[in-house]
Amino acid sequence: MDIYRKILDLIDQHSSFAISAHIHPDGDSIGSQLAVYSFLTDLDKHVRIFNTDPIPPNYHFLPFYDKIEQPGTLDGYSPEILIVLDASTLVRIGNRLSKALVPKQVTINIDHHASADRFGDYNLVEIDVSSTCEIIYKLIQRSGTTIGQERATALYTGIMFDTGCFQYSNSTSQVHHIAANLIDQGIEVDKIYRDVYGNYPVRRLRLLAKALQTLELTPDGKIAWLMVDQKMLNHTNTTLEDVDGVINQIRSIDTVEVAIMATANAPGQSKIGMRSKDHVDVGKICAEFGGGGHARAAGCLIDKSCKMALKAVIEVTKKYLVYDD
Amino acid sequence: MDIYRKILDLIDQHSSFAISAHIHPDGDSIGSQLAVYSFLTDLDKHVRIFNTDPIPPNYHFLPFYDKIEQPGTLDGYSPEILIVLDASTLVRIGNRLSKALVPKQVTINIDHHASADRFGDYNLVEIDVSSTCEIIYKLIQRSGTTIGQERATALYTGIMFDTGCFQYSNSTSQVHHIAANLIDQGIEVDKIYRDVYGNYPVRRLRLLAKALQTLELTPDGKIAWLMVDQKMLNHTNTTLEDVDGVINQIRSIDTVEVAIMATANAPGQSKIGMRSKDHVDVGKICAEFGGGGHARAAGCLIDKSCKMALKAVIEVTKKYLVYDD
Repeated sequence: MDIYRKILDLIDQHSSFAISAHIHPDGDSIGSQLAVYSFLTDLDKHVRIFNTDPIPPNYHFLPFYDKIEQPGTLDGYSPEILIVLDASTLVRIGNRLSKALVPKQVTINIDHHASADRFGDYNLVEIDVSSTCEIIYKLIQRSGTTIGQERATALYTGIMFDTGCFQYSNSTSQVHHIAANLIDQGIEVDKIYRDVYGNYPVRRLRLLAKALQTLELTPDGKIAWLMVDQKMLNHTNTTLEDVDGVINQIRSIDTVEVAIMATANAPGQSKIGMRSKDHVDVGKICAEFGGGGHARAAGCLIDKSCKMALKAVIEVTKKYLVYDD
Repeated sequence: MDIYRKILDLIDQHSSFAISAHIHPDGDSIGSQLAVYSFLTDLDKHVRIFNTDPIPPNYHFLPFYDKIEQPGTLDGYSPEILIVLDASTLVRIGNRLSKALVPKQVTINIDHHASADRFGDYNLVEIDVSSTCEIIYKLIQRSGTTIGQERATALYTGIMFDTGCFQYSNSTSQVHHIAANLIDQGIEVDKIYRDVYGNYPVRRLRLLAKALQTLELTPDGKIAWLMVDQKMLNHTNTTLEDVDGVINQIRSIDTVEVAIMATANAPGQSKIGMRSKDHVDVGKICAEFGGGGHARAAGCLIDKSCKMALKAVIEVTKKYLVYDD
């Protein structure tokens, strides 16, 4: 029996569920949670959603977002089935939740990360799809249930988020056909885009202005970097979340192969984010500093000021920049 | 006979063609021109493309972009058929071209703008589609010719551009099905995205940093504005083109209903760009200053410094901001 059918059978045979997903929730983890919640409640199941971290305000437009609980309300709830979404390991849902949220029957793990460690009793892991929402779409389709506007809104949000609004290479023709079908359910793509990306506090632009003033490049233009120190965060009343996306702007400079951003993380500690275009494996560079990630996007923590941390990372990056043009 | 069939018949019956499109070429005008060029040359037609303005460097990745000529090389060329793409009036291809590029037989006008004045002998105008490229896709499909990778690259570029990479409300389910079919021709969407949007000179970020430092908001946060004066352009060695997109960043501030940007255009003259979210018709505001545009995006020229021009526009905007929340 294929795994889609097996999971639908398990759902059919049980009545109480918990849904969780990775810490620092994003469009795909939230979208897939809410689509599964809507799907299960329509089947008259008893369902609760537990997330370690609160849902960022830009996702509060999603149907049922207010059903998401934090660990404090768990109080011994033990569902028959635990469904873990978009998390490559169980501990990614958070230490406390991963220990306390124990199902009576089975754990179902649904994920699309290449690093998925298949911790579930049943694992629906597909690493060649755009998003967990793409898998949930297929699961709901397979069940014969209609998608409907509410689930379409959640699923489109996750697919949009994990494909960078259809700009990344995971925007396959299948993804576009799914997007078309979701649009046919009556969703408003421009409204969803604006809700997710187009509504940020002005402090974000104030911080961007300060950060851009620290932009520097090597003489050949191949490495570019900037920093967001504690003073800038204080002056603009911002946090680490407000620097999201800045590093992609640096990578977009025409001459740049490697973009580096240092952000004050804690006293004496900097968070380094790295991106590359075509040649340099920034995952390896970050690994030299105890961090990790992918070849084109990676990060690490360094126990130094932003300035000193950048200096160290740039030195190592230069070693990796020797390649044939 | 429907207009698609009529145009395919005209193409069939003639052998020499000129293709033109609007001044200040963009993704859709260039994409549709190059797709039509490729389609016609594969049919062994004699084809030349004439544009008033040069093609921006970020479109130089497109197949056949180097076939585009400027008016200087026209020297009396008179094709049997002139195809004008993505231009709502003939004069939009530029004064000189619109007078000199006279076909022996007929002018075919293919466009999707609501303002299209149907100046052609034959007009394929559809105002409910995303882009001229979407119409050209349907025309090529109708001909029975395969789309192929080269034409798919051009058509996808135009559709991506005119839908804001699938973020605007014109991203219909039909658009996504077409995108899926274009991807199946073997195009690389991430590369196209990066070519068009992800490769800008560092001077653009330097200018952005300076412009953001001038950001101001009304006390209620509903009007936000910034300026790019001549000094900033000089210091960063930038031109008006380098401010593209900045105004959308201002509109994305959560409290903002109206975003205004003033850019030094000529000595003593400022170019005003305006955007709104939901309520204010900025087209009407710009009309008060002799400009125009749409309800949510408009512009005008004011014979004042950036500072004084902003002051005048903000005053008028406040009158329009009286609406029920």
